[in-house]
Amino acid sequence: MGADLGFLIGKMNRTTLATSEYDSVVNMNLFVALLCGCIVIGHLLEESRWMNESITALVIGLCTGSVILLTSGGTNSHLFVFSEDLFFIYLLPPIIFNAGFQVKKKQFFRNFMTIVLFGAVGTAISFTIISFGAINIFKRMNVGSLDLGDFLALGAIFSATDSVCTLQVLNQDETPLLYSLVFGEGVVNDATSVVIFNAVQNFDLSRISTSEAFHLIGNFFYLFFTSTFLGAGAGLLSAYVIKRLYFGRHSTDREVAIMILMAYLSYMLAELFYLSGILTVFFCGIVMSHYTWHNVTEKSRVTTKHAFATLSFISELFIFLYVGMDALDIEKWSFVKDSPGKSIGVSSILLGLVMVGRACFVFPLSYLSNLTKRNENEKITGAQQVLIWWAGLMRGAVSMALAYNQFTRSGHTKLRGNAIMITSTITVVLFSTMVFGLMTKPLVKLLLPPSKNMSRMASSEPTSPKSFTIPLLENQWDPEAEPRQNGSAFSPSNLRALLSTPSHTVHYFWRKFDDAFMRPVFGGRGFVPYFPGTPTEQSVHNLIPKEGNN
Amino acid sequence: MGADLGFLIGKMNRTTLATSEYDSVVNMNLFVALLCGCIVIGHLLEESRWMNESITALVIGLCTGSVILLTSGGTNSHLFVFSEDLFFIYLLPPIIFNAGFQVKKKQFFRNFMTIVLFGAVGTAISFTIISFGAINIFKRMNVGSLDLGDFLALGAIFSATDSVCTLQVLNQDETPLLYSLVFGEGVVNDATSVVIFNAVQNFDLSRISTSEAFHLIGNFFYLFFTSTFLGAGAGLLSAYVIKRLYFGRHSTDREVAIMILMAYLSYMLAELFYLSGILTVFFCGIVMSHYTWHNVTEKSRVTTKHAFATLSFISELFIFLYVGMDALDIEKWSFVKDSPGKSIGVSSILLGLVMVGRACFVFPLSYLSNLTKRNENEKITGAQQVLIWWAGLMRGAVSMALAYNQFTRSGHTKLRGNAIMITSTITVVLFSTMVFGLMTKPLVKLLLPPSKNMSRMASSEPTSPKSFTIPLLENQWDPEAEPRQNGSAFSPSNLRALLSTPSHTVHYFWRKFDDAFMRPVFGGRGFVPYFPGTPTEQSVHNLIPKEGNN
Repeated sequence: MGADLGFLIGKMNRTTLATSEYDSVVNMNLFVALLCGCIVIGHLLEESRWMNESITALVIGLCTGSVILLTSGGTNSHLFVFSEDLFFIYLLPPIIFNAGFQVKKKQFFRNFMTIVLFGAVGTAISFTIISFGAINIFKRMNVGSLDLGDFLALGAIFSATDSVCTLQVLNQDETPLLYSLVFGEGVVNDATSVVIFNAVQNFDLSRISTSEAFHLIGNFFYLFFTSTFLGAGAGLLSAYVIKRLYFGRHSTDREVAIMILMAYLSYMLAELFYLSGILTVFFCGIVMSHYTWHNVTEKSRVTTKHAFATLSFISELFIFLYVGMDALDIEKWSFVKDSPGKSIGVSSILLGLVMVGRACFVFPLSYLSNLTKRNENEKITGAQQVLIWWAGLMRGAVSMALAYNQFTRSGHTKLRGNAIMITSTITVVLFSTMVFGLMTKPLVKLLLPPSKNMSRMASSEPTSPKSFTIPLLENQWDPEAEPRQNGSAFSPSNLRALLSTPSHTVHYFWRKFDDAFMRPVFGGRGFVPYFPGTPTEQSVHNLIPKEGNN
Repeated sequence: MGADLGFLIGKMNRTTLATSEYDSVVNMNLFVALLCGCIVIGHLLEESRWMNESITALVIGLCTGSVILLTSGGTNSHLFVFSEDLFFIYLLPPIIFNAGFQVKKKQFFRNFMTIVLFGAVGTAISFTIISFGAINIFKRMNVGSLDLGDFLALGAIFSATDSVCTLQVLNQDETPLLYSLVFGEGVVNDATSVVIFNAVQNFDLSRISTSEAFHLIGNFFYLFFTSTFLGAGAGLLSAYVIKRLYFGRHSTDREVAIMILMAYLSYMLAELFYLSGILTVFFCGIVMSHYTWHNVTEKSRVTTKHAFATLSFISELFIFLYVGMDALDIEKWSFVKDSPGKSIGVSSILLGLVMVGRACFVFPLSYLSNLTKRNENEKITGAQQVLIWWAGLMRGAVSMALAYNQFTRSGHTKLRGNAIMITSTITVVLFSTMVFGLMTKPLVKLLLPPSKNMSRMASSEPTSPKSFTIPLLENQWDPEAEPRQNGSAFSPSNLRALLSTPSHTVHYFWRKFDDAFMRPVFGGRGFVPYFPGTPTEQSVHNLIPKEGNN
């Protein structure tokens, strides 16, 4: 009777889910199970010299794609259709927000000029070289009907580095300078390449002029500043609201909810006003960790720190798993299978251009940056320059999304030239993420031996020698600990250091301004008014029904 | 130049978002902003005698709906189209999972038989009465072409109570017995009404027979047990995996991610096998709080407890805000506006039937339940019976979803009978949630005066006199504290109590079994093997790059 009943129930319940929906339930099950698998396997391989979680997810995605391809008789390889929306609206915001929320602000702002130099000027250089290379080489190769706009778009697509994968390999504590440079560059780079990409798609390229070029540059600055202000504004608003209303009095859930929602709102507002959501949500994260985070209860702090990191972690796995599956989509490859040599050639050339384009700005700009620094410790060494160059070679989901946007406008990849570009993008993304990604860990070990790392760390970041994994509960992880320490470092004995590094002076005045005007209004470390009962104590006395029941 | 530039950028960036997508970005912005507004206003109104967060969200939804209706010239009132998928796949699972995760297991299992009696038998009684009433009254009212199946579906739709709203008003600590009864009934009720609804939709009702009836009952038990086992299995698997691999050694994020993903997987697997996802994810939550929660690091415990509560909180707000907006959808009302009297009549009759149907099982079943209890403290008093009856009168999103499923099969509500049923459902949901919801807080205060609450609480739940809002960090909130205390209560002096309450004996044997076989394998309080370095200590020594960077 059991089987009979099972069938009956199957028949009975089917109405709650239509057949097409049933397929999507099957797909979601498989996808969630694969995500679990990625976490477990990633954990088991963690001690490995080569692997990291991104590569694991990518490989599992590829394997699953192959299995689906085989079982479906070669007609289908992915569970979902690649959707730019899914990527830009749901997966990217938590990753970038978490990056801003967890970034070491002192390092970030100390190297701010270098980061903007790398992210904006560097990306422009990289774009120019890749575009020029593509125009000159591909025109001779007969790769199908590509116009000037397509070539320039290629430049923008392959200028977008993948900060997600890189950051899994670098460690904020072991190599703080490297981490902040690579990471900060990645964020600015995202904004720059999207601006360039949009400009290329919309400007009339046949009559480019000086005024148009100025327009573009003005455009970039407009985008950069408005996005930053929007993000900072959303962060400050959340800090003010939480400080003013003191949600913690009643509910941790409300505080956490308002932080999540405000961060997301800042991203969506940026999209609404055609700004760079990535920059906005990144600065929102920074401001929230500087002010809002200190206005909430102890429990909310632990929860937000780890909940944001977890959301970001799941989103990353999702993207890599997805890209791995999507790579085998048969439809895309069917257009290039008659000329595999050409496809491989195009991919290799693009990969070469990416490497050359990046080399052309990392080394000269590092040299320029070093000229402005008098302190030997702050200069970028040769080994670090090589690592910065290397760490930005990977191309990821942003490149994929831009390529889909450019080359699949008429629905599918019907034109041969477009098909070759899509498949080449996938090849470059897979190759750079997997091969370069695999080699990053050993390369870091080779160029920056652990003993040297530890000594560097101890000298340049004396305030946080411990890992991020130290429990928050003991107040040892603290986004604000660094500026505080920095402030106290301006004792007379350190006057020479102050004079030698002008960026410290900026930091010093910012601290004064922050303490005098910002913190009294928006809260922050040590500036939250003391209530007769702290949130914790008060909740013991008042039996408030909300917390447990919501 | 600013405005010029802004326009230019607008033009430039528009390609990244197609126009229809742009509208959805606008809608998402508005919706997220409204969610923030609900939280802030809900917080401000918290001290109010009447309001709670659900009603606030509902009212804000109604107001926004009106504004949209006015600005769009009466053509449109909602931002999204009501989607059963959205509700059943994304919003409901976190709410039910969190309920299972936070429920006081001792109270729940002690009253297990009463809960199942209310949830299964009670729902069946309610279904019968509402269906019979609807058949007899509506057939004489000429409400359009409704067949027997529609009337029976009405019975199922209006038997589904809304546990979400009710639980915002009751307090697990002040009225533990009431809370566990109402809440537990709500969960079982969900499963029962969905089973009945599916049965009604699929069985050939013209030739109902005894064997069919047995089929239905067998069906219910099959669904109940398989769903429970699936949920418990997923919970145990997560406990085993985390204990075995000890993710905490490296990363809190991984532990939290695996808990979220496994819980979601259990829900989706239940949907895949046509089981009750609600029951599954509820028991998954219970098992996870009993085993898995104790296997993870301190930080993960705080994070999961509050992150799950926050997700559930946001989902609830989302649902109520959404239902409020959707209620004004003009298309549905246009079919009934020529006969407003009839629509109001139908709604009133349905509301009356709901009240009668619930009274017909709450009081008799409470009487039956009291007969089995010898301990006066455990009997359900008259005032409590009235509150149980009252707390289950609200109808919410489950009723809405089922009504949409039954009456909008052919796309829209074209048939007059269907339109009347949809609008009546909306009216009943709005009226019961708002009017009954508003009166619940005062009613609880009236029937169970605070002093009495406190003394009851002190006597029946001596081990946890404090609110849920006590910080986890101090280990004062602890899902396991209760069974422990219960175990120690079986000292000779308490022998009489043991004999008088047989359910305690079951609990006692379960505890023995749990300690002997389950905990050594799946972990749980005090059964996690001690590693040379605890996760916390270890992470200080090993500088592991993952945690902060993901």
